Amino acid sequence: MKNTFGNSISVTLFGESHGKAIGAVLDGLAPGIEVDEEFIKNILARRRPVGAISTARREPDNFEIVSGVFYGKTTGTPICIVIPNTDTRSGDYSAMRSVARPSHADYTAYCKYHGFEDARGGGHFSGRITAALCAAGAILLSALNKKGIYIATHIKSIGEVSDREFGDLDSDITKLSNMDFAVLDDSMVNAMISEITDAKNEGDSIGGVLETAVVGMPTGVGEPWFDSTESLLSHALFSVPAIKGVEFGAGFAISKMRGSQANDPFYMDGECIKTKTNNSGGINGGITNGMPIVFRCAVRPTPTLMAEQQTVDFKNKCDTTLAAAGRHDPCIVHRARTVIDCVTAITLSDMLASRFGTDWLGEK
Amino acid sequence: MKNTFGNSISVTLFGESHGKAIGAVLDGLAPGIEVDEEFIKNILARRRPVGAISTARREPDNFEIVSGVFYGKTTGTPICIVIPNTDTRSGDYSAMRSVARPSHADYTAYCKYHGFEDARGGGHFSGRITAALCAAGAILLSALNKKGIYIATHIKSIGEVSDREFGDLDSDITKLSNMDFAVLDDSMVNAMISEITDAKNEGDSIGGVLETAVVGMPTGVGEPWFDSTESLLSHALFSVPAIKGVEFGAGFAISKMRGSQANDPFYMDGECIKTKTNNSGGINGGITNGMPIVFRCAVRPTPTLMAEQQTVDFKNKCDTTLAAAGRHDPCIVHRARTVIDCVTAITLSDMLASRFGTDWLGEK
Amino acid sequence: MKNTFGNSISVTLFGESHGKAIGAVLDGLAPGIEVDEEFIKNILARRRPVGAISTARREPDNFEIVSGVFYGKTTGTPICIVIPNTDTRSGDYSAMRSVARPSHADYTAYCKYHGFEDARGGGHFSGRITAALCAAGAILLSALNKKGIYIATHIKSIGEVSDREFGDLDSDITKLSNMDFAVLDDSMVNAMISEITDAKNEGDSIGGVLETAVVGMPTGVGEPWFDSTESLLSHALFSVPAIKGVEFGAGFAISKMRGSQANDPFYMDGECIKTKTNNSGGINGGITNGMPIVFRCAVRPTPTLMAEQQTVDFKNKCDTTLAAAGRHDPCIVHRARTVIDCVTAITLSDMLASRFGTDWLGEK
Amino acid sequence: MKNTFGNSISVTLFGESHGKAIGAVLDGLAPGIEVDEEFIKNILARRRPVGAISTARREPDNFEIVSGVFYGKTTGTPICIVIPNTDTRSGDYSAMRSVARPSHADYTAYCKYHGFEDARGGGHFSGRITAALCAAGAILLSALNKKGIYIATHIKSIGEVSDREFGDLDSDITKLSNMDFAVLDDSMVNAMISEITDAKNEGDSIGGVLETAVVGMPTGVGEPWFDSTESLLSHALFSVPAIKGVEFGAGFAISKMRGSQANDPFYMDGECIKTKTNNSGGINGGITNGMPIVFRCAVRPTPTLMAEQQTVDFKNKCDTTLAAAGRHDPCIVHRARTVIDCVTAITLSDMLASRFGTDWLGEK
Repeated sequence: MKNTFGNSISVTLFGESHGKAIGAVLDGLAPGIEVDEEFIKNILARRRPVGAISTARREPDNFEIVSGVFYGKTTGTPICIVIPNTDTRSGDYSAMRSVARPSHADYTAYCKYHGFEDARGGGHFSGRITAALCAAGAILLSALNKKGIYIATHIKSIGEVSDREFGDLDSDITKLSNMDFAVLDDSMVNAMISEITDAKNEGDSIGGVLETAVVGMPTGVGEPWFDSTESLLSHALFSVPAIKGVEFGAGFAISKMRGSQANDPFYMDGECIKTKTNNSGGINGGITNGMPIVFRCAVRPTPTLMAEQQTVDFKNKCDTTLAAAGRHDPCIVHRARTVIDCVTAITLSDMLASRFGTDWLGEK
Repeated sequence: MKNTFGNSISVTLFGESHGKAIGAVLDGLAPGIEVDEEFIKNILARRRPVGAISTARREPDNFEIVSGVFYGKTTGTPICIVIPNTDTRSGDYSAMRSVARPSHADYTAYCKYHGFEDARGGGHFSGRITAALCAAGAILLSALNKKGIYIATHIKSIGEVSDREFGDLDSDITKLSNMDFAVLDDSMVNAMISEITDAKNEGDSIGGVLETAVVGMPTGVGEPWFDSTESLLSHALFSVPAIKGVEFGAGFAISKMRGSQANDPFYMDGECIKTKTNNSGGINGGITNGMPIVFRCAVRPTPTLMAEQQTVDFKNKCDTTLAAAGRHDPCIVHRARTVIDCVTAITLSDMLASRFGTDWLGEK
Repeated sequence: MKNTFGNSISVTLFGESHGKAIGAVLDGLAPGIEVDEEFIKNILARRRPVGAISTARREPDNFEIVSGVFYGKTTGTPICIVIPNTDTRSGDYSAMRSVARPSHADYTAYCKYHGFEDARGGGHFSGRITAALCAAGAILLSALNKKGIYIATHIKSIGEVSDREFGDLDSDITKLSNMDFAVLDDSMVNAMISEITDAKNEGDSIGGVLETAVVGMPTGVGEPWFDSTESLLSHALFSVPAIKGVEFGAGFAISKMRGSQANDPFYMDGECIKTKTNNSGGINGGITNGMPIVFRCAVRPTPTLMAEQQTVDFKNKCDTTLAAAGRHDPCIVHRARTVIDCVTAITLSDMLASRFGTDWLGEK
Repeated sequence: MKNTFGNSISVTLFGESHGKAIGAVLDGLAPGIEVDEEFIKNILARRRPVGAISTARREPDNFEIVSGVFYGKTTGTPICIVIPNTDTRSGDYSAMRSVARPSHADYTAYCKYHGFEDARGGGHFSGRITAALCAAGAILLSALNKKGIYIATHIKSIGEVSDREFGDLDSDITKLSNMDFAVLDDSMVNAMISEITDAKNEGDSIGGVLETAVVGMPTGVGEPWFDSTESLLSHALFSVPAIKGVEFGAGFAISKMRGSQANDPFYMDGECIKTKTNNSGGINGGITNGMPIVFRCAVRPTPTLMAEQQTVDFKNKCDTTLAAAGRHDPCIVHRARTVIDCVTAITLSDMLASRFGTDWLGEK
């Protein structure tokens, strides 16, 4: 269903970049879950542009929860979060109206909506909509933490510059939760930022890879067919703008392995069943096996460039060129990281509520 | 919803590897679509083991369409396809009953189904269930062809051996439709088969990558949020056993690109809007742009090995080892290719029926 | 979704009256639920025509469970039940091919399926499809009983002849479970059967009302908006052929009441909260209140009549008349009763699984 | 799915009576549909209390469309409508906090939400939420009109006072569209209002029946199983608070008919196939037959009474009594009529978009 995702717990997104407001309706939550507005603000702040490497658009992301929360706790009824749009300069985009930004949604939106779309600032396709997704996801991130489930994403690479692998997940996740630019190896931060500023200075943009780990998921969640853990997560992840690849565990590298290398040997750790390696990313046959869920997302470079690009005017059906004015991120990898955390929280919460019932997430 | 996928057109799977039958219910098809049982047989034959590189299990996949088809055409009501299980030797699997095959679903099935699962031959997790998926998908592959939409998958790599890139898609797709071992560069076939037989001879298994192209999709199909083309395809693809990564267009490689390299410049080809490159894989903002849809799937090596592996007995909670008896594929990449074609056909048909109405797929 | 109903637990129907088989796929059940084939047979026998007042078509309803059950218990994976069609005399219906039976689905099926429908014996619209629904429902009826939830339906009226009201529900439900012709007041059975045979002798048919009670439902199940208990039940009930009205508690009679009469006063029965009357039918604000769920369904007279009726030939677009040959029930009220029990079981089981998790129905 | 209804076109409701705002997200609309805010205001005005027979609560229902509409037309992306709550006097309800109003949702909400619910003014169960439903429905009512589909509801009865039957539907529907108190026979208005004021003067409330007609629906819409036209409409209608019965065509009266009376004989009206009677309410086999869709809804008397009622304190588990303070309607039949029109518009639009594609409703 179009702008709605989830079965037991669902999120519905609305809004356009330069309309009155964007927002989300989060439904199906257990009653009694704590909603900490400060925590939501922190998550939104992590998603917001920081410093020289991000768009100059400054919007405080002041959200308002208009329903579903009473005395700081979920009521069990739908939570509507509204984020007003304040800092919108529509003039910047007017020239783009029928000139398609290459690899952006301008042309496909026109194919689908026949010119009735509100194309200002990317409209409903704008990355800004992810602020609403993060506000909703923040509530679930916090609720999952209380159930012992922790999610964290680091910047695996920006262009050719790579972070280290995940190591001790408990300490890595703690470390990441406090970072704006989420890199495990502090010595790589400057190199990554250089990569971004280089691209920016050339009117260009740059992509990267995000890697996510989830610890604490119960075993036995997910379905063998169609609603496998990978299926549901990838469904949500691929709806995040700019994601062009998703891989679990060893991912594409597993295709070059022998089974004897790829298989994760089980062993007893006291009473616990664990695996020595985690090439499966915590999922066997679509179902969680109790090991950390690990996946990576490929993030494409932002399509909107200051440099001139060849394109077409899709209304007048002629070739033309385009150099973007407006304010655009040269890289969204470090921001997308928070969005990935949040859609992961939404997806896993939904799976858990389907599995264990609608009260589960609110139970002590 | 568990074993059902799709909104306007849906498929529901049932069956266990060593039960009475497996099958699928395909619902929501337009009335009047031709159902050619010979074509379905050919698709099923492509999925079946061939020669020395596949499992010794020989089952003719004799399917029976018990509803929804009348005088060779769809009626518009649900099509149930039943494939009886005939060649099952359950004894082979009895020793595995509580000893988990590493990276297989034995242990997670037990976590989810508490020991009530029919674990014989992988039960409901068996790759055999994909025969039903292929029978259903074959009907849609054929229906899409009549609407000018063609889908083909080739073996991009087996282990370290790679096929060439897609070239002229029209001729490549035609070529692939006639092949059992779907490789574009004929000179690579033997090297790939050697890779597989090497693994087999060592009691081991091997993975690979499948690459799929779809030509003829209309523009303007897919949704910006949650039901993006990538989201729906990946949802279906990740439910195919052994798939651990999915990437569209340039995929993970795009993460190392600058925007100026990654962007696909639009140009006018007569009255048609096309792009010079296709790093986006035919999808912008989640919506089809009229260029070929291109994606790759990482296929893990089969987890069941003849060689001894370390594992646990999950009922008795102790460490143990396991060497599989039974009949198992050393590689499923060449077989999974047909499954990928079929789930792609199901997913795209569903999207088209949602977009253009329930009669569309049956219209001349 | 077309032929599928349910969220956590779903049923998918397939088949045509004179095709190879009809059947159902029941998915989402907890593992470990006992499946008693004798119980299913009894439920199917209750749905089957009995004696002179029913169609002469005699079909044993031999069902086969081809998946999802292992050693007499659910595995947790989809249960496919296939019921082969054996006693089909298609010749009977050939003359009807383009002459619409008034108030039957012949004409609307043609509007929807454009002539590709398998119209023999009502095709996919045939009441026969309810045999598959009952086989699936029987599994859930039995599972609910083990959880202390009991469902029973009696014939409230046939034409102008009425049964008594429900009295002591425990004994009434026990009584009904053993009856083929489910009437609480034994003295009314003959009058009802006379009503049916009178109609039959005149080549006519007759309708009636069914009343259902459910005891043992937990409180707090159902949703305020859209998925209210009434909404979900009526959705399922109105898909049973011939149902034209559904009312809960006092139903339409409540429209003539004052609030002071209609309201059900709460009182403490020991530690239990109960209501003195049950005009709400066990549901307040869409949510179960712990009192018995009570509803009634209006069943129309069978549309197929031996007597001549005025109608049209919808292919040749001309007026004509029709007198049915073939074998048809003069009344389906007493048979529909079992179907109502079964769809009620399916709907409530789905609601309970959504509320309490997928394992709940299988737990001791 | 909880507070969301619809497949192709969906509506999601949020909000509590005394929270910050209520609202709806309407998704899946074709682009280019005209959105006339004056028309929406008129529909909301019809739903609002009028004069002495309604609650004294006066709220202007000032709605704001925050997304999905651009230059007065739908963009094709989600439309979020927010209606702020302004006139809320929470103090009035405080005494009710744990004393259940008989037949209201106070107790069942507590069972479901464990005391975390915002119970002020009925919270999420309040009839006020229907204002959001009507704002969303108004957009579709208007869009359907442009496609030649008209929906109207009249007050069939208040208590024992009845309106006349529907006659010439074209003129009846036109007449009703201009009325605040929707009665076909003007001479019955005073008698109905007396019935309401009598109840009010006694601190009591009164119920009634609403009858709805839809003209202009295409043939061939709806599904034989589970998503029959009756199933989808009743699903939506039973989620409207206070509805306890729904019947189509002759409804419960058909249960007393012979088939020869109940059947609607087909005849040719020029090139058109029509039926002489419409006991089927425009639906055969769950599918529209081109005749007007006709149904009736039983509306219960408002449960909140000024007169003292016997009840329990569900937190303290003791018997007690309750006489409501606050402002409450003695009758909601005349107001519910607009809600019925709107949920009918939503349901039929969804069915049409599923059948004919997502662009259909916006096409000229």
